[in-house]
Amino acid sequence: MKDIILDYANGFVSDEEILRLEPQLKTVHRILYEGKDQNVGWLNYPNEYDRKEFEMIKESAEKVRSNSEAFIVIGIGGSYLGSRAVVESISHSFYDNMVVKKNNIEIYFVGNNISGTYLKELMDVLEGKDISINVISKSGTTLEPAIAFRIFKEYMERKYGRKNSKERIYITTDKEKGVLSQIAEEEGYNRFTIPNDIGGRYSVFTPVGIFPIAVAGIDIDKLMEGAQSGVMEYSSDIIKENISYIYGAIRNILYRKGKEIEILVSYEPRLFYLQEWWKQLFGESEGKDGRGIYPSSLSLTTDLHSMGQLVQDGRRNMFETVLNVISPREDIVIRKDEKDLDNLNFLAGKSMDFVNKKAFEGTLKAHVDGGVPNLIINMPKIDEYFLGKLMYFFQKSCAVSGYLLGVNPFDQPGVEKYKKNMFELLRK
Amino acid sequence: MKDIILDYANGFVSDEEILRLEPQLKTVHRILYEGKDQNVGWLNYPNEYDRKEFEMIKESAEKVRSNSEAFIVIGIGGSYLGSRAVVESISHSFYDNMVVKKNNIEIYFVGNNISGTYLKELMDVLEGKDISINVISKSGTTLEPAIAFRIFKEYMERKYGRKNSKERIYITTDKEKGVLSQIAEEEGYNRFTIPNDIGGRYSVFTPVGIFPIAVAGIDIDKLMEGAQSGVMEYSSDIIKENISYIYGAIRNILYRKGKEIEILVSYEPRLFYLQEWWKQLFGESEGKDGRGIYPSSLSLTTDLHSMGQLVQDGRRNMFETVLNVISPREDIVIRKDEKDLDNLNFLAGKSMDFVNKKAFEGTLKAHVDGGVPNLIINMPKIDEYFLGKLMYFFQKSCAVSGYLLGVNPFDQPGVEKYKKNMFELLRK
Repeated sequence: MKDIILDYANGFVSDEEILRLEPQLKTVHRILYEGKDQNVGWLNYPNEYDRKEFEMIKESAEKVRSNSEAFIVIGIGGSYLGSRAVVESISHSFYDNMVVKKNNIEIYFVGNNISGTYLKELMDVLEGKDISINVISKSGTTLEPAIAFRIFKEYMERKYGRKNSKERIYITTDKEKGVLSQIAEEEGYNRFTIPNDIGGRYSVFTPVGIFPIAVAGIDIDKLMEGAQSGVMEYSSDIIKENISYIYGAIRNILYRKGKEIEILVSYEPRLFYLQEWWKQLFGESEGKDGRGIYPSSLSLTTDLHSMGQLVQDGRRNMFETVLNVISPREDIVIRKDEKDLDNLNFLAGKSMDFVNKKAFEGTLKAHVDGGVPNLIINMPKIDEYFLGKLMYFFQKSCAVSGYLLGVNPFDQPGVEKYKKNMFELLRK
Repeated sequence: MKDIILDYANGFVSDEEILRLEPQLKTVHRILYEGKDQNVGWLNYPNEYDRKEFEMIKESAEKVRSNSEAFIVIGIGGSYLGSRAVVESISHSFYDNMVVKKNNIEIYFVGNNISGTYLKELMDVLEGKDISINVISKSGTTLEPAIAFRIFKEYMERKYGRKNSKERIYITTDKEKGVLSQIAEEEGYNRFTIPNDIGGRYSVFTPVGIFPIAVAGIDIDKLMEGAQSGVMEYSSDIIKENISYIYGAIRNILYRKGKEIEILVSYEPRLFYLQEWWKQLFGESEGKDGRGIYPSSLSLTTDLHSMGQLVQDGRRNMFETVLNVISPREDIVIRKDEKDLDNLNFLAGKSMDFVNKKAFEGTLKAHVDGGVPNLIINMPKIDEYFLGKLMYFFQKSCAVSGYLLGVNPFDQPGVEKYKKNMFELLRK
């Protein structure tokens, strides 16, 4: 298999049902490319991005890797989940430990919560290490990263002096507007641009995502190549040829049939943050006006032993979308044991991945038999190229799915409400 | 505040509604203590546990801490989530890093998935380290831990020789039955007992949970004290005095009102695995016969910037239960900045925890205004005592909630279906 393939042949949604949505999908396609809503800059961004800034990002990443032992990424939501998803998917599973060993760079994500315990204990870990930081915020007024930046700015000025700390602080923000832009100007920090017409959850291919990804030593050229391939393949308005539209259509059909929860399933633990990124993408795009599928995720087979019972036998209000990775990065062969006390010799010579795939097949059949619709997204392997393509696939599907639901997939008015209350309480 | 307190005064469920369930709750209480269903050994276990085995566990934990740099816990589901929940809640937030620094023990949880990548990369990390392992499985036939054990058994025999590796292998299993019990017997391994009448998801206070917890250097006496306090307080059949019954009753009332999803919310990132443990407890206990609330979790304020939009404005099919920790373990004070470029000086002198609490209050009001019922579980702090009490509180609530729903909260027939399919596929 050489490409991402969507398999939905489990009998829950027919081709006929999907094709019945073709006129609506063609309309959605037109609306999307007409750019009636703002924030569709992501659509062709993988082809149109600023090559000069891209090269600057690579150079800065090299500089950080050469002068820092730890890199602190300050951001929340869309300024956080995309880069973390790629970094954790590609990196070693026991990341923090290996970086020590390989003398590679440690990456920490902060400013994505307000826990003093989390930040204080991070400070313990950073003791004696050379660091650089990247603050990512469109406006600079989002409280979580703003507090973390105030604390780290002071920390770095104490450690390196005001002048030298400038070399270690990178700001990713609006081209001209906003508090963070002013700070960058005033202090003379290195800076990268968040495009005006791309919302946070669609921003992984912009400097928001790619600078931290590059610092982690991941190939951002290949990531963009994958995204470019997505732009090309998923722009066809011939529905049966465009799997991102088919996925969007199926979600809509299942939602109308009462499936209120979608579970993104993975059999590789290190895809956890990719699942978190996907939750934001779909949850924030569709969860409005009293509507929207509740996005949830499971890591299998781990969660078959916690949530498996409910998926098998509980309320039939859910469907699953399985991310099936064909080739694992690493594998282990199960060996023969002379005594065979554990009765596992029937697996001798088989690899763990072989068993993992059989677990997937067995689970698929069990859940389908139990009345849970299952979609399968097959991807050849987890590398920069296919991650780029997959993430673009999801972005495109999400836009289409949101329009089919009758909501604006690019706004998030509900996020402001807690902020408003919080600021009122804080200013009292 | 000196105790765990349940606050449900948000206007979604009235005292009258709860008291209307009093007769049913009294019946449930009687059924529970009559032990009509099997697997209610957990009810009084915190008072009745085997003191001699408990001391042995402490001694073994000390031995592991003295002769090992890493400890491998092999188990899945109920043989995994309880100990991991306590270890991660109590330990340092950047655990893996700190253990290196403090020369403490590293703990890895394996056999909870079938990813060859995960296991192979763990092997990289373990290179050159002295290790001990704990295999936890009632029968020994659960495939995930069985495979991991086969691989680690061979690994250790190669590293230490067969005789010396015995000193480093600890088996937690049934007293007499099952493959793992036979292996322990045959090989002469150290062993601890999983009581017959306690199911996996109710087993955190048994050797299943407390041995790994003790190895992590956590005070298991205090954990048991907390659980004992729970046994005492949550055994009253006077409903209005028993918050575990009230919580169970409210869940049932909300479910009948169409709230199909419960979100366990925390403002402390390190409670992640406590939330995972809670998901298994409730999901596996209630998700059957086409019924059951879908348990989900959010870590705030992180997820306000991903799932917050949907919770605020999406489909009104959910309610939230907030774990509110009164006193943080660590905190950081936000300082005044002369230039105040970020306009945060209004927070100067305030602690991050103060801001975190205002975020909680603001979010609570926003979500309640948005039509999402909110329950609050206030706990004084995250320590062994209150974690023990909280986990017992949830266990008791879950049993009651399951009975009110009309299901058997102690079985999990649906978990077998994928296993059956998988074994058929594997034996082909």
